[in-house]
This record gives sequence, C-alpha cells and structure tokens, in this order.
Amino acid sequence: MKWKRTHTCGDLRSSDIGKKAVLMGWVEKRRDHGGLIFIDLRDRYGITQIRIDPACKVYEDAKKLRSEYVAGFQGRVERRPDNMENKNLSTGEVELVAEDIDLMSIAQTPPFQISGKISSSEDLRLKYRYLDLRNRNMQRNLMIRHQTAQLVRNYFSENGFIEIETPFLMKSTPEGARDFLVPSRVWNGRFYALPQSPQTYKQLLMMSGFDRYFQIVRCFRDEDLRADRQPEFTQIDVEMSFIDEEDIFAIVERLVQKIFTEIIGVQLNLPFQRLSYEEAMMNYGSDKPDLRFGAKIHNLSALAKESDFQIFRQTIESGGLVAGICAKGCAAYSRKQIDSLTEQAKSFGAKGLVAIKIKDSDWESTLNKYFGDAQRQAIIGELAASDGDLILIVADQQDIVLDTLGQLRLALAREENWVPSDRYEFTWIVDFPLFEYSKEEQRYVARHHPFTSPNLADLDKLQAHPQDVHARAYDLVLNGSEIAGGSIRISDEKIQSKMFQVLGISHQEAHDKFGYLLEALTYGTPPHGGIAFGFDRLVMVLTDSSSIREVIAFPKTASAMSLMDGAPAQVSERQLQELGLQFVQELHKPSSENAE
Amino acid sequence: MKWKRTHTCGDLRSSDIGKKAVLMGWVEKRRDHGGLIFIDLRDRYGITQIRIDPACKVYEDAKKLRSEYVAGFQGRVERRPDNMENKNLSTGEVELVAEDIDLMSIAQTPPFQISGKISSSEDLRLKYRYLDLRNRNMQRNLMIRHQTAQLVRNYFSENGFIEIETPFLMKSTPEGARDFLVPSRVWNGRFYALPQSPQTYKQLLMMSGFDRYFQIVRCFRDEDLRADRQPEFTQIDVEMSFIDEEDIFAIVERLVQKIFTEIIGVQLNLPFQRLSYEEAMMNYGSDKPDLRFGAKIHNLSALAKESDFQIFRQTIESGGLVAGICAKGCAAYSRKQIDSLTEQAKSFGAKGLVAIKIKDSDWESTLNKYFGDAQRQAIIGELAASDGDLILIVADQQDIVLDTLGQLRLALAREENWVPSDRYEFTWIVDFPLFEYSKEEQRYVARHHPFTSPNLADLDKLQAHPQDVHARAYDLVLNGSEIAGGSIRISDEKIQSKMFQVLGISHQEAHDKFGYLLEALTYGTPPHGGIAFGFDRLVMVLTDSSSIREVIAFPKTASAMSLMDGAPAQVSERQLQELGLQFVQELHKPSSENAE
Repeated sequence: MKWKRTHTCGDLRSSDIGKKAVLMGWVEKRRDHGGLIFIDLRDRYGITQIRIDPACKVYEDAKKLRSEYVAGFQGRVERRPDNMENKNLSTGEVELVAEDIDLMSIAQTPPFQISGKISSSEDLRLKYRYLDLRNRNMQRNLMIRHQTAQLVRNYFSENGFIEIETPFLMKSTPEGARDFLVPSRVWNGRFYALPQSPQTYKQLLMMSGFDRYFQIVRCFRDEDLRADRQPEFTQIDVEMSFIDEEDIFAIVERLVQKIFTEIIGVQLNLPFQRLSYEEAMMNYGSDKPDLRFGAKIHNLSALAKESDFQIFRQTIESGGLVAGICAKGCAAYSRKQIDSLTEQAKSFGAKGLVAIKIKDSDWESTLNKYFGDAQRQAIIGELAASDGDLILIVADQQDIVLDTLGQLRLALAREENWVPSDRYEFTWIVDFPLFEYSKEEQRYVARHHPFTSPNLADLDKLQAHPQDVHARAYDLVLNGSEIAGGSIRISDEKIQSKMFQVLGISHQEAHDKFGYLLEALTYGTPPHGGIAFGFDRLVMVLTDSSSIREVIAFPKTASAMSLMDGAPAQVSERQLQELGLQFVQELHKPSSENAE
Repeated sequence: MKWKRTHTCGDLRSSDIGKKAVLMGWVEKRRDHGGLIFIDLRDRYGITQIRIDPACKVYEDAKKLRSEYVAGFQGRVERRPDNMENKNLSTGEVELVAEDIDLMSIAQTPPFQISGKISSSEDLRLKYRYLDLRNRNMQRNLMIRHQTAQLVRNYFSENGFIEIETPFLMKSTPEGARDFLVPSRVWNGRFYALPQSPQTYKQLLMMSGFDRYFQIVRCFRDEDLRADRQPEFTQIDVEMSFIDEEDIFAIVERLVQKIFTEIIGVQLNLPFQRLSYEEAMMNYGSDKPDLRFGAKIHNLSALAKESDFQIFRQTIESGGLVAGICAKGCAAYSRKQIDSLTEQAKSFGAKGLVAIKIKDSDWESTLNKYFGDAQRQAIIGELAASDGDLILIVADQQDIVLDTLGQLRLALAREENWVPSDRYEFTWIVDFPLFEYSKEEQRYVARHHPFTSPNLADLDKLQAHPQDVHARAYDLVLNGSEIAGGSIRISDEKIQSKMFQVLGISHQEAHDKFGYLLEALTYGTPPHGGIAFGFDRLVMVLTDSSSIREVIAFPKTASAMSLMDGAPAQVSERQLQELGLQFVQELHKPSSENAE
C-alpha cells in the first residue's frame, strides 16, 4: 500500500471540504463524463464519489478501472457542483478529487450484479458467496446478527450470567435427531459426537454451582433434507439455578424487549401473554399460533350434535369434533376457490370441508335444511360471523380437525393479507404434555427431552397415566414461529430414572448413555431450568429475512452441502486408513450430483 | 422451592442486620456447638453462616444436613457475637438465624474434598468434573475466562470489528496437522472436516469487504498424545483489510494492555519490543524467548577460532558455531550438577558441554592451557562474567548450539529461580523465514501457513532461493510462550499459485483443495492480514494456571478422552450402517484402557 487509509467511504461530509484524504475500496461504477472520470468507490461503510480530472497524473490509469477493482485514492475533498449532490448518499455533498491512485487488485467481471436488488439464483450466490456477501443487504444482515449477539452477551453478563464454553467433541447419545459422528483416530473404533445442544453440560454446570450460565453456541443435527434447516445452527443457551418458570420468563422477556428496542426500534409490552398448550391447540390448531390476526377456531360440537346433518352427528357420536372458523369477507369466494380450500383440508387429513356463505344474516348453503333457524343463528353467533363472511367447518377426529383448521387459518391469512406487517405478537405456550406416543416406535417419547420435569402435581401419574402428565416446559412463540423453548429440569435422580423407564429406556441403556448425569444428580443438585433460543431464526425476524441462509455467512444448501468449497468431499485413502475405516459400499446418494 | 431466594451467600453485611432473608446453596460444613447448629452455606458468590437455635421448629431437620446437601434457609440477619466475626469472609460480621429450612437435595459423600486446596488426582477430578468445578479456584478461573472473552468482544466491537460465525462443517484440506473428519450420511462416501482455524473463511470475508472481522471460535486438531494440548481449543481470530503489520500490532497491543489492566490489574507499557527471528535465535536459541531474565547467548566463534582447543577450531572450520552463556553465581556447582547439565546438553543433540568456573578474575578450568590469557579475558569480557559465575560453552552445528544453550538457559532459570514472578515480558518476533525444509517430506513446507505473504523485497527469490525468503509473519511472545501469531496474507492469485508451487503442491491439488480461494482472489482482493490468539493459553497466564485443563470447563485428557462421560465411545451398529461405514479391523489403541 502506498498510503494509510484516512477515512472510510462513509465518512466524508461537507465539513471535510478542503481536507486531504485517502480512501480505499471497491470500484462500484466508473463513469466518463465530459472529460472527467467519476468513480463510485464502495466499502462497507458507504460510497464516496471520486473525481479524476484530465490534468491528473494518473488520469490514464483511472481510465482502466473496472467494476470491483480494489484501489486507493489520495486527494482533496471538494464540494460537488450545485445540483450535483446525491441526496441518497450520506457523502453525497462532496467528492474526492484524486491526485494519485494505488491500484491494489484487478477483478474479473463478477458472475452476477453485486449491488442493488439480489436477482441471481441462490445456487450461484452460494458458489460465489464471497461476492454475494458484498451486497449491502447481506452486510446489513450480518451486522445485525453481530449487534444482536453483542447485546445478548452484554445483557446476560450484566445480569450475573457467565458464558462457559462446553465441548464440541462429546459422547453420542442420540435421542430424537441423529448425531453427527467424529471417528477417533487415537481410540480406534470409537466416535465422538457433535452436540445437538449443550443440554447435559449446562445441567452439570448448575450442579457445579454456576447458578446463571449462558452461551451462544453452535449445535449440530444430522437431519434429512429440509428446505429451511441447516446441519449446523446457533443457539442462545441459558440455564439458571434456584428458580422457577417465572424467573426464566422475566429474564427472557426483558432480553427480548431490549433486543427489539435497540436493534430494530420496536417497543414491546411486558409481560408477554401466556396460552396453555390446550388453549393454543383448541383456538389455533397449533402449539405455535400466529396471534397477529383472528379467525380463531370455535368448537361447534354442542351445536352440531343437535342438527340433522348426519356427518356431524356421527362424528360427535364416535368421539370426534366439529369445529369451524370464520373467514371474514370471503363470502365472495368462487366455486374454484372453495374447491381449493377443500383440497387443502384433505391434504391435512380431513375427509372434507363445509363452507357456508353468510348473506342477509343467514346461511347461503345447501345445508340450511339440516339446521334449524336457531341452530344456524347460534353457529353464526358463536363464530361472530356477519354478512359477507365465509364459515368453514370440519368434522373429524379432534387432532385432524384442529390441524386442518389451523392450517386453513394460516393459508387464508396469507391469501387475504390478514397479517399486518411490523406487528410482533409474542406468547408463551405452557402446560405441555410431557410425553407423546410414537406409533412408529410403539412407546412414549419425550415431547421436549428426557430431562424435562413433570408437573409436581402429576408425579403420581408418571407410570400409570403418562399421557396425562404435564411438563414444566415452555415455548416462546413469535408470529407463529417458535423462537425459544425450555423447561424446568428434573433435579432428582429417582424421578430422572423413572422418566427413562417410562420412555422405555432400560436401566442399562440409561446408565450407558447418561450414567454420569444420573450420578451427578446424587451429589447435591439445585432446582434448575433454562431455555434455548434459535439464534438464526431470531436474526431472520430482526432482519425480516425469508430464508435462514440470508443470515448465515457461509450456509449450506438443503442437502447440507457447501456449494463454495464442495464440502462434504472425498478424503484421501490415508486419512481413512488412519481412522481404520472403510466404506461398506456406495450407498444411497441424493439424485442431484452437483457436489463439486 | 418453598421461597424465592432474596440474597446470595456473598451478599449480607452488617447493614442488613434485622432484615428477613432467604439464602440457598450447598452445605459447606455443619458444626454442632453448645446446642446450636452452625451451617456454612456456600454458593458461587460466597459463604454465609446460618445459625439454627434449639428452639427453631426445624432444629431436628437441620441436624440431618450433611456436606454438599442443597438447602434454602429463611430467617433473620443478626450480628455475630463479639469475637465471633470471621474476617476472612465478606459476610463474616453477620449470620442468618434460621426460622425454616427447605431441603432441596441430599448428597452422597463426594469422592474428594470440594473446598480448599485441590489435592486429589487429576483423573478423579476429571471423572467428577461437576464436583471439581465447585472448587473456588476453578470457579474463579472460568469467571476470569468469561470476563476476558467479554472484554475482548467489547473491545473489538467498539473498534468497528464484526464477529462473524464461520462453519464448523467444512472441507478437509490437511496441510500441517490432521483434520478431525465428520462422515456425511446424506452424501455417502464424503466427509466434512472440523476447522483447524477459520483461516480461509476470514480471508474470504476480507474479499467480501467486511474490513474488520473477529471471532472467538473453537478449533480442532487431531494430534497425537501431547500432555498440554487439547483436541479442541479456542482461538481469538482477527482479520483486517487495507492495513499492514503496524495496524495489527497497534490493535493487538492496546487489547493486551486493556486485558492485563482490567482483568488482573497489571500495567503494561506500549509499544511492545520487537525482535527479528534471527536475533531471537542468536540471543536466546528460541523463537519464543523468555525475556524475564538475562543469560543471553554470545557468539564466541571469533575468539575460539584463535585458541589451541582443537574441538572449537574444528567446529568453526567445518562451518559450525561456538557460543556460550554465563550462569550467574553458579561457580559453586558440584561435579554432579555439571554432569547433569552436560547430560541435558546431550539430550538436545550437543556432543558435549564446556563448563568454566570463574575465580579470581580468571578461568578455573583444565582448558586454561589451550587459551592465552588475553583469550580467556576476552571470553570473560564478552560474557560479562565475574567471580562466582559459571560459563557454559557449546561447539557444534549452529542450530544444535543455539537450541542447546537456549534450553540450558531455561533449565538454569528454573533451577536458580531467575524468573521473577508477576513480571510480563512481551515481544513481537518478526522477519521469520517463509519456509522451512522438511527432511521427512523432502520439500519446503510453510513455516506459518501457505497463505502467508512473502516480504515484497524477497519476491524474486521465491522460486530459486526459497530458503532466503522472509515472511510477513509475526508472533506475540509472552514470558517464553507464543500467545498469538499471524501474518499479512497473499492477496494476489499469481503469488498464491507460485507459493503452492514452491510447496510442492501441484496445480491440480491446489485447485482441488483451494480452488475457491484462488478464484476468489481474482475478483478484487484488498491487502489484508490478521492474527490469532490461543485463548486457552492467554487465560492460563491470567489465572496463573499450570495446565490448560484448569481453564476449560470440561477438558479432555492427553489421550483426547473425556473421563466424565467416556467419550469417545462406541456407537450403535445402526449409526455406522447409516453412514455406510465399517471398521477395517481393530487397529492400534493406546495402552491404557481406562476409556470408560
């Protein structure tokens, strides 16, 4: 470098006029205009216009500059001529009149446009990620990510939390998702696993007395292809001792409030509302309800039972549910639109969908005859429907009805633009069931994880009626997405052992996998609990991004591949030999073969 | 929990006398004394004495409390009786007179003493790490680690750096140490590798224009057993654009100064001194010299050449070096002590060691006759030796002489307590050779890594005389340990390609491994460079710890094993099948079999 940089491309203002300055950056644009050469020079701080006059000794060199060349310019700051200011730039009142150039790097023509709206294919962007990251939008996303991480760390530090780094090379204890494994060379035949979360470590830290722990930490999950998941993701991990649910809620709510105020200038009211799992399911057909709009689900079973409509009556008699939602202003839906809704309902498992248009304060439906006037009015009343609305009713097993109506509710909201932009509806979901029955595995599995404490009042039901046991678990839901989840943990070895038993994990297996944790519980364990935020999701919300890949510097594709460097890739025979490993045969491969 | 905690065990003072309080923690000690029960209750904030009077309703319960039980106490703060204060405790003027107890967890007798000086075997401590971490010293170490990480992050943030998370699942490009590999299930037959450092990513971020990057990041290296290494370690990783060495030095020196002032109250003077690699080797026989004491190496070849001592003359004639150090005050060393020094010298490859005691301003040595009076005095003068000192001379090939004297210098310093405690001697080592010749691989290898820029003045020697090329690399050395190292990087694709060539990496191999980086260099690359700190080592210095395992919450042994959970461990047949992997056979295993 010929000189030191004196200012960034976002610095210079009219107060700098007359000063000498050295700027360095990328050529955004070169314009030759009336004998003068203008360069828009870009760095991450902004853009400044450079002017090279014909008399300048490097005028000819300046002519050779192309987009994305890297160069430094030494010169003097001048006011731009009247009417030539650029109001869109913070540096738009001035320009640097160059006296000398330091050409640092030439550049090929990039495979896509760097500046402005992103328009190229995502695969191309990922292959040339280092160019894609020059885009102002991507730079802003990563800056917000950084600022949020800093805020989170300072918040927890100021509140007496300690960030403690936990191991990445741990023991494989798959329970739920698959672990990524790391073969050991020193201990041939054995593996480490990458953590799906630092769950057991943070509980051990509570047993060590650390009291208030947090960590912003990478986690790993070897899942099958899913569009908006990453094999590695980042978690804000928190654990506290001598606390109950209220302490967790309080510390988290103040954090979220602070993040929204300081990062995006949105004021949130505390405390957040709370819904039981039961309420969420019955009203929204989801344990992560989007509360930015209405169209709540209403139980119509009591009313439908009295009707002459056989399908409804049979459903209720066989223990099912009849429920409906009111689609405001959708009475004008065409046959085709209603058929489409019905198709959607069927795709969620419902056998059909009843759609009733409201006109002149009554149903406009072929079903009118099966329902008395009072019944029709009662259903209108229950759903608070009025003229121009469309009532949608599903009759089926309860879980199918709720899921179907919950999904239709979301589909209609998208279609009808019911969702107000820049509205943030937070809710805690509480009182989850502790278990869910896995038909596939023919056993109860933990809804959250096996360390979640049952409600103390339900302890005696643990073995005989596991389906009735509630968990001391909680999720934080924002606009229909789970952004954090956690629980009060089991702090008693006997309950933890019983929990493994209910989960069908034998004493031997529990000991093999979690023996150290079970033993740790017997040396004096404080009551403790915690929560973990999906940090990538949180940053998506803060940056208003539509994909998780927009908030990660070097993400992988849905098939867990890095298009930039071709990872995963084949390794040398020698590396395999050192690990004592060989491949059984070439097994399944995803059909697309664009690995390198 | 019966109540909410109102105070920690470090909170209560005489100003709280009369207040109600609820404390929770671990029973450090129970004493029954004159009918009263005293509990020392411990949490991470301190210890508070609890008194339970015989009239208390839970007196009998209190009798059952044992060490490490977890309990809460509700009561009233009282002043301790005169002469019963404990000056060693910040809460020592008061006690909590208990009214009620909440016994939260009983505890087995721990396998070792929790409080006070650590005395149990390290293996036992690692197996019960969650108990070991209750020790005040371990808690302090992790607290200092946290505080340092926070300080580092805030420092870099305030200076315009962005922390950007880089991938853990990357491409294997072993160059130097071995990668840990992660088999891909989705892409059968392929592997990810865990990063040895985010080197290529941070360079790509510079090409993206991020300008100032940092990250506190876990790195991985699959090394053979080494006592004070960990397979995963933490690095403070830094990279900057549009800078040269001086910018890196300035930002790092101010950081280090801030850490030492704020974390341990030690004032450092800036700038740090600098030594060239050549100077460091010639004067201290090491590229990480301990400058806390003297005993510098002096080149005695010119003087020795004139002597009648054949060994010295022959050494010099065959291109070797004669050099010595002065061991202050060691003339009284016994025959046995000097034999021991000679043995050490031989273990470093020297053929022998000449030891000369200084008495009455002359040598007291059987070699006196081979050296004229003037020669003996000249050597005494060169080494600034005086009566009572011991001169040690080695004659051999230059690298053996320097290494041997450098090692003897360190051994003597330990033996003779030359090293002042709480002194911190920082130095930059600069002007490293770019390459070193690997006899094993019969080629030049990069001394730092293949992305290190050669000195611009040496560019034309790159191909013909690689051994003469200097690197734009620098290490920061503290008290004889390298705590950080970095370089200005190659920012020109042509030089990078040439570098690979000199390293014996074929065009094809360079393209396979680093093709994306070579291509990235052609799209406009700013001059850039950076540095990486070994964070664990830094925290060792700040906590004055003697082992890296004292500053890591859950470390592994020298054989890369976690004694707590037994990782690495065998995994299920199903997990192996899903990866399409099998073991060739049971290969080598470390002899010790205490894996689980």
